[in-house]
Amino acid sequence: MSTTQRLHEIVLQARHADFISASERLAPYVMPSPLIAFPGRPGRTLRLKAENLQPLGSFKIRAAFNVLLQAASRRSLSRIATASAGNFAQGLMLAARQLGAQLSVHIPDTAAENKRAALRNMGANLFVHSFTDWWRILMTRETGAAEELFIHPVCEPDVIIGNGSIGVELLEQWPEVDTVVVPIGGGGLAAGIALALRSAGRRIRIVGCEIETAAPLSAARAAGRPVPVNRAPSFVDGIGSNCVLDEMWPLLRDLIDDVVVVSVEQARAAVRTLAQTNHLVVEGAAAVAFAAASSPDFEARNVAAILSGGNIDHRVLCEILSS
Amino acid sequence: MSTTQRLHEIVLQARHADFISASERLAPYVMPSPLIAFPGRPGRTLRLKAENLQPLGSFKIRAAFNVLLQAASRRSLSRIATASAGNFAQGLMLAARQLGAQLSVHIPDTAAENKRAALRNMGANLFVHSFTDWWRILMTRETGAAEELFIHPVCEPDVIIGNGSIGVELLEQWPEVDTVVVPIGGGGLAAGIALALRSAGRRIRIVGCEIETAAPLSAARAAGRPVPVNRAPSFVDGIGSNCVLDEMWPLLRDLIDDVVVVSVEQARAAVRTLAQTNHLVVEGAAAVAFAAASSPDFEARNVAAILSGGNIDHRVLCEILSS
Repeated sequence: MSTTQRLHEIVLQARHADFISASERLAPYVMPSPLIAFPGRPGRTLRLKAENLQPLGSFKIRAAFNVLLQAASRRSLSRIATASAGNFAQGLMLAARQLGAQLSVHIPDTAAENKRAALRNMGANLFVHSFTDWWRILMTRETGAAEELFIHPVCEPDVIIGNGSIGVELLEQWPEVDTVVVPIGGGGLAAGIALALRSAGRRIRIVGCEIETAAPLSAARAAGRPVPVNRAPSFVDGIGSNCVLDEMWPLLRDLIDDVVVVSVEQARAAVRTLAQTNHLVVEGAAAVAFAAASSPDFEARNVAAILSGGNIDHRVLCEILSS
Repeated sequence: MSTTQRLHEIVLQARHADFISASERLAPYVMPSPLIAFPGRPGRTLRLKAENLQPLGSFKIRAAFNVLLQAASRRSLSRIATASAGNFAQGLMLAARQLGAQLSVHIPDTAAENKRAALRNMGANLFVHSFTDWWRILMTRETGAAEELFIHPVCEPDVIIGNGSIGVELLEQWPEVDTVVVPIGGGGLAAGIALALRSAGRRIRIVGCEIETAAPLSAARAAGRPVPVNRAPSFVDGIGSNCVLDEMWPLLRDLIDDVVVVSVEQARAAVRTLAQTNHLVVEGAAAVAFAAASSPDFEARNVAAILSGGNIDHRVLCEILSS
């Protein structure tokens, strides 16, 4: 059985009790994020699931703690590794410290210095690779070092189930929700939420959203398989890879009902509105979800937009606020 | 019996059930604001009650809806009036619209044009007075017009009890809280929270906080009575009047255990930290509460800081973020 089949089959077998257990496991470390009303239009209620308020400013803390707490329940952990330069690695570092484990973080040499410094300050052992070597680690999970356990930042059942705890909370907070709009990075956030909602016996429409500068899920859906796309730089840096991961494709194909592509201008307007009207600082990916869900063209009655994170450079924020 | 005695006596008689009722009454209109963990220091846990996330960006919506829903339960309302140029008037306008009542808002000619426009756009009838005349309305509740009901923005039992709903939520969210830090504007926020906590039989320390540029409660406590203070302008515009209101003094004297005065520099640092670490946009008054509660000198174990609102001019926010 290939890794792809394994991931797909494991998470599709998850029962609602597994998502509830994840929620309970995370309770000491993760806040149930508030669901904030946004002034709607007639016939539509829009609420914002504010994961940007989590510790470290992103939903990734859920996956990081869930995967590590689950691993620690199965074996004693002393050395673990991951390949991520962002919020997931920081979340894993926080979890590793709590469990007394050492964490090696493999990063591409393209990773920003401030992210390297943050990880180093938290106590991670950093290993810097060329982008090609780093991508190979992501694909093969072979780091070349003698770590006990490699934790993939996206394609890992307990990562996806940890993300699903957002779906558990959402159903508790708003049983009438009928549509959820989720930004598509690796796809683990959307897959986790979709699986949690399905496992509860609810057929809630899952809408993925992408930024126009890099929309690999739209391309994969059009082609019927993952295909590389061009990727232009923008301030939206948390989503928009150049290709859907093979391991994630079967899940994203089956679990996501629609995809909306948002323009950079819409994402900028969303950052502005959320700061000025809701007093929330959000990063580009979260702005994309809000922009998609609040668009006049978007059809739904009770919509939740997942504000995935808040880690935006304050210079970018202020440039947007003053434009 | 003077008005002062009336207010004092009415609210001191409020039972815990009155605050619970206010919470229930407000539930359709007001979000239970999230209590957000802030990385603490050894021996101290700090959590933030994020009222800046409320509709209209401030706790004032609680008082506005509570006072109007209570009034509407006693008599039919068609014309009401208030004297406020800020968040309270906007909250009252929102409540008046829900109840189909007309609202007259008496403002001083010093009120900013954007606040006037916001009220006008919401459908308020604006009456502009010289500052002296406006202050007289606040003191006498005589507007000279034939409104059915004048609602004072601060010295009103149902305003204070509405604010107390924050205390009810706080006890539910964190029964172990032992200290609450509250910014002092008119004092109704601090009084409401203190009364709600006392009525639950809890002796929780209530710490008022003020900005160095205008600290009338500190001055009143030193003098044993309200005394005028000098008032220098700063970006902290939601608190810091030039004198404690006579009607509020007996409550503030009896209910507030300590007062902390925060510097403008500390308040600016607090705005920066909350935006960058917690992804929350806060106004000056809320920043003052965070600055007081997070100061190394502040002694407490389980501290909640009330982030009263988020209505900061984005130019001020960005000037602070980039400094």
